[in-house]
Amino acid sequence: MSGHEQSGAAPLFRQMTVVGIGLIGGSLALAAKQAGAVQTVVGVGRSEGSRAVARACGLVDRVAEDLASGVPGADLVVLAVPVREIVRLLPEVARLAEPGCVVTDVGSVKGPIVAAGDAAFPDGRFVASHPIAGKEQAGPAAARADLFHGANWILTPGPQTRPDLGEKVAALCAAVGARVRRMDAAWHDEVFATVSHLPHLVAYALMDGVLATERGGERLRFSAGGLRDFTRVAGSDPVMWRDIFLMNREPVLKALAGYQDALARLAAAIRDGDGAALEARLLQARVAREELANRS
Amino acid sequence: MSGHEQSGAAPLFRQMTVVGIGLIGGSLALAAKQAGAVQTVVGVGRSEGSRAVARACGLVDRVAEDLASGVPGADLVVLAVPVREIVRLLPEVARLAEPGCVVTDVGSVKGPIVAAGDAAFPDGRFVASHPIAGKEQAGPAAARADLFHGANWILTPGPQTRPDLGEKVAALCAAVGARVRRMDAAWHDEVFATVSHLPHLVAYALMDGVLATERGGERLRFSAGGLRDFTRVAGSDPVMWRDIFLMNREPVLKALAGYQDALARLAAAIRDGDGAALEARLLQARVAREELANRS
Repeated sequence: MSGHEQSGAAPLFRQMTVVGIGLIGGSLALAAKQAGAVQTVVGVGRSEGSRAVARACGLVDRVAEDLASGVPGADLVVLAVPVREIVRLLPEVARLAEPGCVVTDVGSVKGPIVAAGDAAFPDGRFVASHPIAGKEQAGPAAARADLFHGANWILTPGPQTRPDLGEKVAALCAAVGARVRRMDAAWHDEVFATVSHLPHLVAYALMDGVLATERGGERLRFSAGGLRDFTRVAGSDPVMWRDIFLMNREPVLKALAGYQDALARLAAAIRDGDGAALEARLLQARVAREELANRS
Repeated sequence: MSGHEQSGAAPLFRQMTVVGIGLIGGSLALAAKQAGAVQTVVGVGRSEGSRAVARACGLVDRVAEDLASGVPGADLVVLAVPVREIVRLLPEVARLAEPGCVVTDVGSVKGPIVAAGDAAFPDGRFVASHPIAGKEQAGPAAARADLFHGANWILTPGPQTRPDLGEKVAALCAAVGARVRRMDAAWHDEVFATVSHLPHLVAYALMDGVLATERGGERLRFSAGGLRDFTRVAGSDPVMWRDIFLMNREPVLKALAGYQDALARLAAAIRDGDGAALEARLLQARVAREELANRS
């Protein structure tokens, strides 16, 4: 039971419609309901499978097949679908949503979504957001009410976003246990290109590179924990990541270029047999890595 | 209790001297003794700290400060120190070891070590080996008797190695629970450049690249599980990895070049907005990654 429910406050929203019943959408449905932050949850799932799981797991109060049957009646719509879908659906949500309805999303690229959201809702009812939560398993069956406990949830309000509605969405994020932070959308996209999109790209490239070697499959048989750890995320949904890479193209290419430089510096030290330079670089990386580990 | 001890067979070796009492040396000391594969274990540790831990944890029967006090009397010497140290110590071990003494190592680069071992022991008493085992924690305090259970232990006998002594070392590896495999040293170094050394280099480069960005420390604060997983191994010992990269230079640079190509292919698909090519590459990497995960 959350602080919100314990305080006996009225729900923040009467009807939350979650579009996309996957790990994030399903977890938010469970968590917001449990926290008493919303009265009713409607889940829009395009596939029969996700709707069946949402019903069986009791993730939502009602499932809907499309926006037309799920969005009207909502005072909060959460777009929890892949980033390209979010941009594509925003105009239709704007047509279907009731006048006072607040709209947010959970996409991991923010610049293009903020632009599309401000265009679809010139009255400032779109509040872009990005919860930093996830796990290897995807889909509604992996949903859990505590997914956002202690996680950062980033709001990137656009130039048009109404501040009071930003506060309301922030209150929902806090109610499900997240730490709310605000960031400029462009800086968000730069930061996540570095700490999330690039590592995923690197993992995919590692697997791709091994496969391209002579007797690649045979080599893989000897991989110990290391390669498996690195490439865990190369098990993520290719379509979702394709869209993230394409939608965050410039920041991803910029982060990649910086990484390629770092790789080239290490390669040069190895090629030149420069043990001192190599050790200094490895040591510096270890120190940073330890700070990262200690902070978690 | 191992199959070896249960069978009541005589120990394979009378006195095993382990040079270097770290995670691998300490675990082998514990495991070989428990399995009844060796009668007595002597541990050579250069630092007072590692000798104290070895004594306190009962890893060995006797500790020695240097080769001169640890090697004479042994009929098996195991060099469990960083790869450059192995090459450096081999001639001294050859001078100190008794005529029938078998010598092996646990280094993760094999070509140069096989060459140095064959040169130091022209009578074929050097049997190069590489156990594929390890964990994030290093040092003798992390040693455990079951570290090698189910792990691959690769033997890379040189042109000079006596086959009967190769069999004896293989029996020791099997006695501590490992699966013994034999490989050509050059192929070993190519394979491990791909599945182990390159992933480590990539992890170091990722941290290095993030640090080199504008407001790098601030970016790191937003890293979720992904980056932490990838860079776990960037917490490994910089000196040990410096030496592995330098000693396995050509295979590492070759694997790195293949990886840089893979990265460039992904970058080109992103730059060109070629969603189909990007998705195909990501999907192929995921399939390989899943095969890897299912095999473990």
